[in-house]
Amino acid sequence: MRKVVVKKQREAMSAYGLDLLIAISPENFAYGTGFVVPSQPLMRWRHAICAVNAAGTSGIVAVDMEETTVRGKLPHSDIRIWGEFTEDPMATLAQLISDLGCETGKVGIELSYLPTSDFQKLHALLPKADFIAADKIFDDLRQIKTPEETELLHRLSRISDNAIGASFDAVTPGMTEMDIASALTRSVYEQGAQDFKLMIVATGPRSELPNVGPTKRILEEGDICRVEIFSVINGYHAGVCRTASVGDPPKKASEIWANLVECKYRVLDAIKPGASAKRVYESFIEKFSELRLPPISFVGHGIGLHLHEDPYLGKYDDYELKEGMVLGIEPLVYQSGYGFGLQLKDMVAVTNNGTKLLSDITNTDDLYRIS
Amino acid sequence: MRKVVVKKQREAMSAYGLDLLIAISPENFAYGTGFVVPSQPLMRWRHAICAVNAAGTSGIVAVDMEETTVRGKLPHSDIRIWGEFTEDPMATLAQLISDLGCETGKVGIELSYLPTSDFQKLHALLPKADFIAADKIFDDLRQIKTPEETELLHRLSRISDNAIGASFDAVTPGMTEMDIASALTRSVYEQGAQDFKLMIVATGPRSELPNVGPTKRILEEGDICRVEIFSVINGYHAGVCRTASVGDPPKKASEIWANLVECKYRVLDAIKPGASAKRVYESFIEKFSELRLPPISFVGHGIGLHLHEDPYLGKYDDYELKEGMVLGIEPLVYQSGYGFGLQLKDMVAVTNNGTKLLSDITNTDDLYRIS
Repeated sequence: MRKVVVKKQREAMSAYGLDLLIAISPENFAYGTGFVVPSQPLMRWRHAICAVNAAGTSGIVAVDMEETTVRGKLPHSDIRIWGEFTEDPMATLAQLISDLGCETGKVGIELSYLPTSDFQKLHALLPKADFIAADKIFDDLRQIKTPEETELLHRLSRISDNAIGASFDAVTPGMTEMDIASALTRSVYEQGAQDFKLMIVATGPRSELPNVGPTKRILEEGDICRVEIFSVINGYHAGVCRTASVGDPPKKASEIWANLVECKYRVLDAIKPGASAKRVYESFIEKFSELRLPPISFVGHGIGLHLHEDPYLGKYDDYELKEGMVLGIEPLVYQSGYGFGLQLKDMVAVTNNGTKLLSDITNTDDLYRIS
Repeated sequence: MRKVVVKKQREAMSAYGLDLLIAISPENFAYGTGFVVPSQPLMRWRHAICAVNAAGTSGIVAVDMEETTVRGKLPHSDIRIWGEFTEDPMATLAQLISDLGCETGKVGIELSYLPTSDFQKLHALLPKADFIAADKIFDDLRQIKTPEETELLHRLSRISDNAIGASFDAVTPGMTEMDIASALTRSVYEQGAQDFKLMIVATGPRSELPNVGPTKRILEEGDICRVEIFSVINGYHAGVCRTASVGDPPKKASEIWANLVECKYRVLDAIKPGASAKRVYESFIEKFSELRLPPISFVGHGIGLHLHEDPYLGKYDDYELKEGMVLGIEPLVYQSGYGFGLQLKDMVAVTNNGTKLLSDITNTDDLYRIS
């Protein structure tokens, strides 16, 4: 268990009057323990659970086929193993809750993750426990990263940023989106990522499509190439997007890009502790609206154990920005009306007096050039 | 909507006395529609829902940012869009349920997927509806693939199988696991897969580790190389695993491999409509136990819209095997005690009189040879 996270969880329990706090989603399990149980995100029924009581005593529930992994990562923890085909994880969890002294207590648990049928079983096993939605507690705690989390997100940001640059450098006109993808994924692993998510390789007219992978499309002079990838280590993500032109870019692409770059600097300037996330968005949209294209509803969001997490820098909810937040900032235009899309996504940490760029490898002031 | 699936769903509704059947997990949404909403598996709150009533009338609920994708795929469907930051998908779903005439009806829904807090909202909006767990209905329907599903799984099996062969052919001693991974992922995309899951590249002593990605480890003479990958199209998966030796394999590896190959043929011979899945497993374990290693608890499982689905060929539950099932068959040894692991995973369809091998590219009678 991660001591600093347990401490934050205990403070939250005290504030909300909880006796126990239970993480059951892959991201909050990883938040408490520092690692992802490999099959938990792939097979939802293979529950891995991490509980901490108000005194700071903790316990873990894990499925038998992940026992060696979990014991290896948490050698000194109270680990309860349930058999995949022979036992119910809710029975194991109910026993843990009782052993932690909370069978009649106020138990915070992720009700926006816990499936209904599991909750029904748990409630039947512990009818006197008062189960309360703790989703917002985790969301709020995770908004402020520890220095170690920020350092990992910096490392991941550089992996993504480096990998995209390497993929652009590896190709010339006549090669294909596959060649970009191949260099990209290789670089991500070579730099030590455990995995990646959401690889987007969208070139030429395909650059208008939001979430598409690579095809055999051949790169031609004048193409716009949108490439994004999220590198992953221990459940943490950093997504970076870069846009390149093959040879000289279309004039209109350079004009739109200049707007997106100005948006980026405007957003970076506006972010600081105490700033309103909504007002940062409004400052962005003022510049962005010069493009006379459909506005996007947010220009950034928290990032860490999930691709998107609080806070959002958008037109709806507001949040106060705070030191320790890590944000993905992404001014973008999918359908420009000129046959190409452009996107500039960076990773940024909120510092005591402003921001620190985490995806700090590529100079994005001009479109990257493939030649 | 896929007509043949709607027909199967209506038959199931009739058998269970349901007025409505609601798919809410990514896999069952894909089952009803034939495609995956890109962000649904990545961001659980971006619900995409597919409902069919007893008369066969259907409706779709989708998040605003996926509207163009969903309307493009289902141009003639009743599609209800909810706004990500401004609306609650359960309100949109409740309206759809009412419009389909089921607000006081018996409504089957995936309670093992639907989060507790969403169910609480839905129940409050439609207090007179009788919500019933429909998870088993979907699991049972999906056990028997349509000819189109089997054809797609055949295509995916060949993509995975071909890609692993290509990755072994691309490397020589002195190259690294990264070189295997690079050729592997490239081939998967080049053959038309949209995505892949669970890439395992485990060579030398690392071949003992269950779920590990590639590293910079250099291939040496005598290494055993375990490589697995699941190719993905429209939410369907096909996982294939092959094991190679760099140059001559250790004698013990050839002996264990011969056992695994015999297990494979034994399992293929035993599978036919009407056979007991448990007895197929028992036949396997009889041969496998000659290895005097810890037994594995299942040798196969259904596969399709999920990496693992019913039926399992294992020691616990039993299932009657039926024509139309598609199975992953995987005799394997992780920790052999000799410093290497071996795995042979094939994709198989149950036909009217036996089986058809779907991963039918590589000859696995001997260990694949990297030289």
